[in-house]
Amino acid sequence: MTRPPDAPSATANPQWGGRFAEGPAAIMKEINASIGFDQLLWRQDIEGSLAHARMLQHVGLLTSEELIAIEAGLKDIGAEIENGTFPFSEALEDIHMNIESRLSERIGEAGKRLHTARSRNDQVATDFRLWVREAIDGLLGQTRALMRALATRALEFHALPMPGFTHLQVAQPVTFGHHLLAYVEMLARDCGRLADTRKRLNESPLGSAALAGTSFPIDRQMTARALGFSRPTANSLDAVSDRDFALEYLSTLSIAAMHLSRLAEEIVQWASGAFGMVRLSDAFTTGSSIMPQKRNPDAAELVRAKSGRIAGDFLGLLTVMKGLPLAYAKDSQEDKEPVFDATRALTLSLAAMEGMVCDLQPCPERMRALAGSGFATATDLADWLVRELRLPFRTAHHVTGQLVSLAEARGCDLADLTLEDMQQVEPNITAGVFDVLSVEASLASRTSYGGTAPANVEAQAKRWLEELNATL
Amino acid sequence: MTRPPDAPSATANPQWGGRFAEGPAAIMKEINASIGFDQLLWRQDIEGSLAHARMLQHVGLLTSEELIAIEAGLKDIGAEIENGTFPFSEALEDIHMNIESRLSERIGEAGKRLHTARSRNDQVATDFRLWVREAIDGLLGQTRALMRALATRALEFHALPMPGFTHLQVAQPVTFGHHLLAYVEMLARDCGRLADTRKRLNESPLGSAALAGTSFPIDRQMTARALGFSRPTANSLDAVSDRDFALEYLSTLSIAAMHLSRLAEEIVQWASGAFGMVRLSDAFTTGSSIMPQKRNPDAAELVRAKSGRIAGDFLGLLTVMKGLPLAYAKDSQEDKEPVFDATRALTLSLAAMEGMVCDLQPCPERMRALAGSGFATATDLADWLVRELRLPFRTAHHVTGQLVSLAEARGCDLADLTLEDMQQVEPNITAGVFDVLSVEASLASRTSYGGTAPANVEAQAKRWLEELNATL
Amino acid sequence: MTRPPDAPSATANPQWGGRFAEGPAAIMKEINASIGFDQLLWRQDIEGSLAHARMLQHVGLLTSEELIAIEAGLKDIGAEIENGTFPFSEALEDIHMNIESRLSERIGEAGKRLHTARSRNDQVATDFRLWVREAIDGLLGQTRALMRALATRALEFHALPMPGFTHLQVAQPVTFGHHLLAYVEMLARDCGRLADTRKRLNESPLGSAALAGTSFPIDRQMTARALGFSRPTANSLDAVSDRDFALEYLSTLSIAAMHLSRLAEEIVQWASGAFGMVRLSDAFTTGSSIMPQKRNPDAAELVRAKSGRIAGDFLGLLTVMKGLPLAYAKDSQEDKEPVFDATRALTLSLAAMEGMVCDLQPCPERMRALAGSGFATATDLADWLVRELRLPFRTAHHVTGQLVSLAEARGCDLADLTLEDMQQVEPNITAGVFDVLSVEASLASRTSYGGTAPANVEAQAKRWLEELNATL
Amino acid sequence: MTRPPDAPSATANPQWGGRFAEGPAAIMKEINASIGFDQLLWRQDIEGSLAHARMLQHVGLLTSEELIAIEAGLKDIGAEIENGTFPFSEALEDIHMNIESRLSERIGEAGKRLHTARSRNDQVATDFRLWVREAIDGLLGQTRALMRALATRALEFHALPMPGFTHLQVAQPVTFGHHLLAYVEMLARDCGRLADTRKRLNESPLGSAALAGTSFPIDRQMTARALGFSRPTANSLDAVSDRDFALEYLSTLSIAAMHLSRLAEEIVQWASGAFGMVRLSDAFTTGSSIMPQKRNPDAAELVRAKSGRIAGDFLGLLTVMKGLPLAYAKDSQEDKEPVFDATRALTLSLAAMEGMVCDLQPCPERMRALAGSGFATATDLADWLVRELRLPFRTAHHVTGQLVSLAEARGCDLADLTLEDMQQVEPNITAGVFDVLSVEASLASRTSYGGTAPANVEAQAKRWLEELNATL
Repeated sequence: MTRPPDAPSATANPQWGGRFAEGPAAIMKEINASIGFDQLLWRQDIEGSLAHARMLQHVGLLTSEELIAIEAGLKDIGAEIENGTFPFSEALEDIHMNIESRLSERIGEAGKRLHTARSRNDQVATDFRLWVREAIDGLLGQTRALMRALATRALEFHALPMPGFTHLQVAQPVTFGHHLLAYVEMLARDCGRLADTRKRLNESPLGSAALAGTSFPIDRQMTARALGFSRPTANSLDAVSDRDFALEYLSTLSIAAMHLSRLAEEIVQWASGAFGMVRLSDAFTTGSSIMPQKRNPDAAELVRAKSGRIAGDFLGLLTVMKGLPLAYAKDSQEDKEPVFDATRALTLSLAAMEGMVCDLQPCPERMRALAGSGFATATDLADWLVRELRLPFRTAHHVTGQLVSLAEARGCDLADLTLEDMQQVEPNITAGVFDVLSVEASLASRTSYGGTAPANVEAQAKRWLEELNATL
Repeated sequence: MTRPPDAPSATANPQWGGRFAEGPAAIMKEINASIGFDQLLWRQDIEGSLAHARMLQHVGLLTSEELIAIEAGLKDIGAEIENGTFPFSEALEDIHMNIESRLSERIGEAGKRLHTARSRNDQVATDFRLWVREAIDGLLGQTRALMRALATRALEFHALPMPGFTHLQVAQPVTFGHHLLAYVEMLARDCGRLADTRKRLNESPLGSAALAGTSFPIDRQMTARALGFSRPTANSLDAVSDRDFALEYLSTLSIAAMHLSRLAEEIVQWASGAFGMVRLSDAFTTGSSIMPQKRNPDAAELVRAKSGRIAGDFLGLLTVMKGLPLAYAKDSQEDKEPVFDATRALTLSLAAMEGMVCDLQPCPERMRALAGSGFATATDLADWLVRELRLPFRTAHHVTGQLVSLAEARGCDLADLTLEDMQQVEPNITAGVFDVLSVEASLASRTSYGGTAPANVEAQAKRWLEELNATL
Repeated sequence: MTRPPDAPSATANPQWGGRFAEGPAAIMKEINASIGFDQLLWRQDIEGSLAHARMLQHVGLLTSEELIAIEAGLKDIGAEIENGTFPFSEALEDIHMNIESRLSERIGEAGKRLHTARSRNDQVATDFRLWVREAIDGLLGQTRALMRALATRALEFHALPMPGFTHLQVAQPVTFGHHLLAYVEMLARDCGRLADTRKRLNESPLGSAALAGTSFPIDRQMTARALGFSRPTANSLDAVSDRDFALEYLSTLSIAAMHLSRLAEEIVQWASGAFGMVRLSDAFTTGSSIMPQKRNPDAAELVRAKSGRIAGDFLGLLTVMKGLPLAYAKDSQEDKEPVFDATRALTLSLAAMEGMVCDLQPCPERMRALAGSGFATATDLADWLVRELRLPFRTAHHVTGQLVSLAEARGCDLADLTLEDMQQVEPNITAGVFDVLSVEASLASRTSYGGTAPANVEAQAKRWLEELNATL
Repeated sequence: MTRPPDAPSATANPQWGGRFAEGPAAIMKEINASIGFDQLLWRQDIEGSLAHARMLQHVGLLTSEELIAIEAGLKDIGAEIENGTFPFSEALEDIHMNIESRLSERIGEAGKRLHTARSRNDQVATDFRLWVREAIDGLLGQTRALMRALATRALEFHALPMPGFTHLQVAQPVTFGHHLLAYVEMLARDCGRLADTRKRLNESPLGSAALAGTSFPIDRQMTARALGFSRPTANSLDAVSDRDFALEYLSTLSIAAMHLSRLAEEIVQWASGAFGMVRLSDAFTTGSSIMPQKRNPDAAELVRAKSGRIAGDFLGLLTVMKGLPLAYAKDSQEDKEPVFDATRALTLSLAAMEGMVCDLQPCPERMRALAGSGFATATDLADWLVRELRLPFRTAHHVTGQLVSLAEARGCDLADLTLEDMQQVEPNITAGVFDVLSVEASLASRTSYGGTAPANVEAQAKRWLEELNATL
């Protein structure tokens, strides 16, 4: 990896002035060319051109010989790009012109016929939709892999007590499995959003031409089908100027990244000495040769941080699109980098998170101890008062408060109070109350649908694993 | 409307210092209480409590008499709020405590039993989902109304030529109807996103209790059904800490507002003297007593601007949720104001835009003149060369360029060149070429699916009107 | 506090449709009128009008009698607004028209002369700058008050050990005072930014008129001076369309709010049972009648969350201003609500944070114990090896790593190793090493400028208190 | 330019899954390493290390021989990087470790002593501040160059009439020079913000070590001085965790980019056929071989769009920093890419805008015609009524409205009404009124400070040019 640090890259040094001594042409080329980033679309561009060429031949705008030449030419160009021998040119601005120009170089006349009934406007819209669709499929797969990892660990720890927090204060015991499954629910919604985004974007702009459609007798249904789109877009002006699919994609990613940031934050906290609830292996931490016991959760911190850049990517593109008149404007060229950047960031985050989820080891004793701290079963006591003595809830609430105060004053747990202590506060309390005051009893009792009872959690984890295995 | 300007409101003067002389209690009350804005949830809170009470009675946790008392009490409270006689209290923090406390005041003991097997955490999550669901229904109705207005005008002007712009330069003629239908497509996607958001949020958190579920034998299916939810949420930790529905709603609104900002920008441009393409009535402009001819498109400008605040609302809440550990944290209380604010902003924008669309009068002569300016049918000429002479597209492109240069040099339009002029550039051109050089011929030829040919536009407008009338 | 929940407010219910049955006029009024929020500018509007009137009289555009009538009229109007008897009218759109119209009602002819050589465009720009300037002064005062609170507590705890974290892992001991002073530095930068913003905004737009200046012989220096501005703005087009001052203000607030979010996060963590490092009183926590020991740090969570809405306010307005052509456009009317909202949010946050800082009680034993946990003095050992044995730093690093591993294997602290143990790893180690292995020795040794040595911290805290007292 | 499209870059394809077959190590390396972008800091890293080494020698922690070896080694490494022969290693994570490790390779023992009394935490904070400081200097130079270009054109066109718009409606005539100078004012404020940001960031974190300072007898004043910093930072915890300088820098850039987006929007509008007010040369437009008359203002559109990504960069980093506990966390590593990206985007935008400003040619006839359209001198008439007849302003307003209505009904301009026509509306009007109704008279009359009178504009343009030349 020996790369000159001042090479064209997403990040540049500020000494631009000097370079622009070359004059307006250099500035214009620098700001205008997109080949530096849109070369990522090369597969989609070739795929789209093949579909277009076959349709042109089908409707009589290309001969069979021309089509054969184009197919061979595009195949060769694909190979050149894969081999790294394709001569990318900044003067040709973008990937579309680079490929078309190379095609004409290689096959002559027929290459010049490829752009019939097509414009760069509908071409780029088509290519980019194909790319985003593929990215969605990749992210769906990754998200499901993370869900599977979470559900697997949830099944493993369906009965392991941990403190359930509100306001980061211990509130009630829950199981570690239950906590992990909460993230499965979030990720399932992310998958739902990705799938909806995919469905909505899956229309083919190809054949909308520059902005008004075309007078050639093209068959847009045919190209749509060939490219796996559900249908052609219905309005040519909309088709070339719309970037909803990129925005919806980015908003979906920004919510997904927020979910990961929450789990990442929890991992950082759980792994800190103060909590001591989980241990990450060397694989996802960085150590320090000076403090070998230190396991810095760098990966979790980076996942937490990536949520910022993805939100920024969404906002950036939304701002680009604000107030843009129809139809195509060059502003739209700013759509690709945020999409590429957010895709890479979320892809990395999902991979790292899956790794961490598989990797982390809970510390059961510490978890259980914290789960029972802070009178965490006080609610169970109040519920007992309602259920067994039929106290109104607000009254039961009040009685419980008095009992907790008593225990606090004694420096003991609720379960350590005597029956007499309890009866002084509420005379009708019976010895049965002690059955609900342990962490395990509390957990076992939460059998309402969606509650933390280990049997519930086990069933939910299994249900998820079955569902996820079915979509494999 | 006589309201003291320093009254508690979303906007306050900065002289806070003084007020905080009252001490910590005053600061805490001020920052903590949400009753100032969450009172908007009062209908949803009563609705949710009724469903909960009926379920409690069904499973034996309330008697029939208690239920009857609660139902009557909540009904009376609803009437008090509607009448403006309900004694809102800031000390009771939020709408949920205000109503519950008032209920106990009015019906005693039974009121204190209402909160059995429920916590404010699941209660607020339920109420807020109900509110957002209703807001979605309202926005769906409004968006469809705007689509209908656009489609109606599109049908009216399906054949009216206007300049089709790229880069705000005249590129090719399109019809005004075609342009308006582009927005119908955008709004249809907004409806799709709203509907997807609605479907995804339509799960009932009620019965998740504080965070862990409950030991009471509640029936969450019953409350879910009663409140029109598809099902209960599956994980209690997720249910009380999730705000995805608010985020997805806000992201959907921010994309919708961006669409409106584009149309608003176009209206501002079209209505400017330089374009002179449309005229807005007094209803949606502000005049000036000094320049009575001036029709400032204030409404359009405000619609354009509202897209900023809605984007800000989304990003604000996304930032709030970033890195928040489970389960409930008070940070979530910051979810309501952005949702209320964005809802109001988009509601106003849709209403104003519907008004403007119905109201605006195109100036056909000016539109037609601009549509034909700038050699707007040059592409038609190139396509003719490909179609009739079977020139390769890139070659046809080049020939057309030469002809446009010739016309430019002569100071005339393409249609004003003689056949001889044309044949000097390309000898095979025939008189048939003149058939494609008029604005009307250009429009009529764009018959590809989604193209701007008037017959296409008429059909699309009718299709949309049928579809929209069917969903009335 | 009895307010009908559907009253006009920043938040509205979505059933707009119904209200708009009233027709376009109602929609337009609703979206166009700003009196609902810009009434907060009433003091500034009167102040600006007084300065303008006096200048008009000075240059001969008003008679002395007219000026006297105007002064008296504006004074009376101010009293009416303060008393709550001013008849605000939505039809008059904004605070400027409301006041001017009322003035003409009260004093007749002279009132109609007030608007000579002035336009609403320069008037609103002036009023709003005055408001923001005052808000800055309020926030500067509040920020300094918080700095004083922090410095006071820092002095109190200049020697109290606490764990210094990196990656939320214990890294090296620091003092609690040192940690608190880190926030004083951040807030000092916030003050610097506020002061710079104030300086930059302090130019008077008054007299720029609608956009082009005026032909009246006005004296802009005079009005600028009267309103406390440093000078008049130099370009009338810029003066009426510029909203930089609001944007710079909001960006400054968004950075300040981020600082508070960091301290708030720390307070939430420190107050959690797992950390147990500080205790907040009832004043800034909410309890629960059922779990009286629970002190939910709601105020800290809300401060943490407010950073989201302030960021959203900045980004919202930045989006509004993007791509807006000169000069005035109605979009600018969207400038006030985010500024008011962010001001209120930061004002509340600073007040609540000052309260919490004064209120919180550290738990010295727990802090000290954590400060010494995790081989927190390993760096001190490495530094000793460099200093005393002149090992290269990277070598010392390596040796320390071996010693920590040894201690970890033994289940003891570094200080519990014997000299022999140590010499097995590095033969030249002497007994002197034990002097640097305690928390106190570590703290005391960090005497580099800006380091955590208690003497340093004490000096810094005193320096800040002196500086802050000097600016009182 | 032959680069494989799947090479590591800011944008990646979504098929991550496959690559992670390599296991956790590969994921962790991928997410953790920053060498791909932070290599841009190499000059700053070497500069910082030189200053640190000289200080270490000065205080006796290095010998003269060691210092000489380090100096020579770093110089050689700099040459290697410049030559492109430096062996960058991803395993060494970042530029700091790459350089330090290479130094030890080259000079042995002495290289291992360089990191004495330093940590990566203070090192990276120092390097990055140096980079941002240099970027500010570059942007200040570029902004001033653009101001000079604007002021030069403003002087050239100080008297050229153009329409002054409000709401994109012609309101009053202004001069083109006046309009251009409005942007000089905006950019001057940008320079002010850049300078303030520079001043505030110009403190040296070096010597803060990991987080707590150091026990070595270092001289932070000396390194601060050597690196051109005003002073060392005062609190070590703050110094290693603070990213205010990056945030303030990004917020400043986002406001500057918004300014450019406004001018870019205007250029797009002015260059459109409908306005026809300016003509851009080929240098900053893209043509089309098919429509050679077409000059698409791509550069302006891209500048307009870049404002989105810069806003996104700010928001992204602000979100990263939200709620981050002290001191260093790996999240901070996400600070560099947004800063690099925004710097590059603004650098390009300023260069392109300077080019366009120098390049554009106004179309004086069209500008003048629009300037006088729409009764643009109605305000001049009203002012005349106030000045000459001493009508109250609101009355004059009303009279003018009647006269404009009359002219509108007649289909003529105000200047085409007869004196009798005028006297029918207001009997006291005299022939003198006609002197103020021409565009030139209107312009000449706006002599108030900051007004558009050509003499004013000329003076302001000259003042700016003098001032800018002085700072050359």
